[in-house]
Amino acid sequence: MKASARNQLFGKVTDIRTGAVTVEVTIGLKGGDTLVSSITIESAQSLGIKNGDEVLALIKAPFITVVKDFGGYRLSARNQLKGTVKRIEKGAVNSEVVIELAGGDSVAGIITNESVESMGLREGDTASAVFKAGSVILGVKA
Amino acid sequence: MKASARNQLFGKVTDIRTGAVTVEVTIGLKGGDTLVSSITIESAQSLGIKNGDEVLALIKAPFITVVKDFGGYRLSARNQLKGTVKRIEKGAVNSEVVIELAGGDSVAGIITNESVESMGLREGDTASAVFKAGSVILGVKA
Amino acid sequence: MKASARNQLFGKVTDIRTGAVTVEVTIGLKGGDTLVSSITIESAQSLGIKNGDEVLALIKAPFITVVKDFGGYRLSARNQLKGTVKRIEKGAVNSEVVIELAGGDSVAGIITNESVESMGLREGDTASAVFKAGSVILGVKA
Repeated sequence: MKASARNQLFGKVTDIRTGAVTVEVTIGLKGGDTLVSSITIESAQSLGIKNGDEVLALIKAPFITVVKDFGGYRLSARNQLKGTVKRIEKGAVNSEVVIELAGGDSVAGIITNESVESMGLREGDTASAVFKAGSVILGVKA
Repeated sequence: MKASARNQLFGKVTDIRTGAVTVEVTIGLKGGDTLVSSITIESAQSLGIKNGDEVLALIKAPFITVVKDFGGYRLSARNQLKGTVKRIEKGAVNSEVVIELAGGDSVAGIITNESVESMGLREGDTASAVFKAGSVILGVKA
Repeated sequence: MKASARNQLFGKVTDIRTGAVTVEVTIGLKGGDTLVSSITIESAQSLGIKNGDEVLALIKAPFITVVKDFGGYRLSARNQLKGTVKRIEKGAVNSEVVIELAGGDSVAGIITNESVESMGLREGDTASAVFKAGSVILGVKA
């Protein structure tokens, strides 16, 4: 697949919960981390998603919030993947931050240079990639 | 209207489906393409949206994923508008990609330069602008 | 808390509406403005959010649409915070626009330079920061 989403993670569906409008799909990533995607019932039916399916999770980098220190706060976002900052690439205004998760998968986020500085974020830091379940687009093999 | 959303598409409401929490509004664009927007029931009622209404769909460019080749995958995103890459403008980190749809409307997405290169994306390519229904803000004349 | 979300607004929960799938949390900001966040029922329960709680609202800057002139349109987005443009910082492709709300809180949005120019946006202008309730991540003290 050739798509522009910076994050394209492969995994296996481990749980499907159907609500009134949306379906919450839990995906076990290769590396052992878990990701949650929220899609509409119509999409879930049209894709025919079921437990055990191999799926692709697409998440654009601007959807990722990087958290270095929760400071005693708990967040509403369903996805809070912990890892180690592997790379910080600075542009004119924004930086791309790549977080390597425990299992080997990586998540890239685009945040402002100001945020990098105000958090004092450096390569090697422990940090979390935080994003809402609704930010994830699911792909299945036809 | 003077708004910063890079994509401001005019169309006519062709279908309204009311769920438990959200309303899915289908919009026929001038050029013949179709777009789906998901808004809350409260918003739909407050705007008084009904079939045949002329509406404005606002979509920020960072919400757009550009897909050059689906590689046999089907995606959960409700909007997958196919067209031709008309323009690629490179910045320091990101590029703006403008896709012209069959009917003449254009959709602009902001993606990383890395994505442009890894997809081998060029002007003239066939590509799709992919975005979730929840990324669309609707506007109606008061 | 050290997080990359450009907007981190403190407030107090003034209303909670539970739907079939999502919970809409209304937050009174320090300065008197009001913000709405939509989170899943599961997140609301897990966070234990209740009226009067002090919460933190995180909104990434790319989620913000800046509207200078509604031109007679009403928008579906639940959050439309009015204020004064305090600062516009230009990068190569994007600008960061900081809007100061009546009560003193500020909201920063990232929009393209092209949008800044086509709107004729300047410091001192009245403008609104528009974003969907689903773009807000809530944080509560553990």
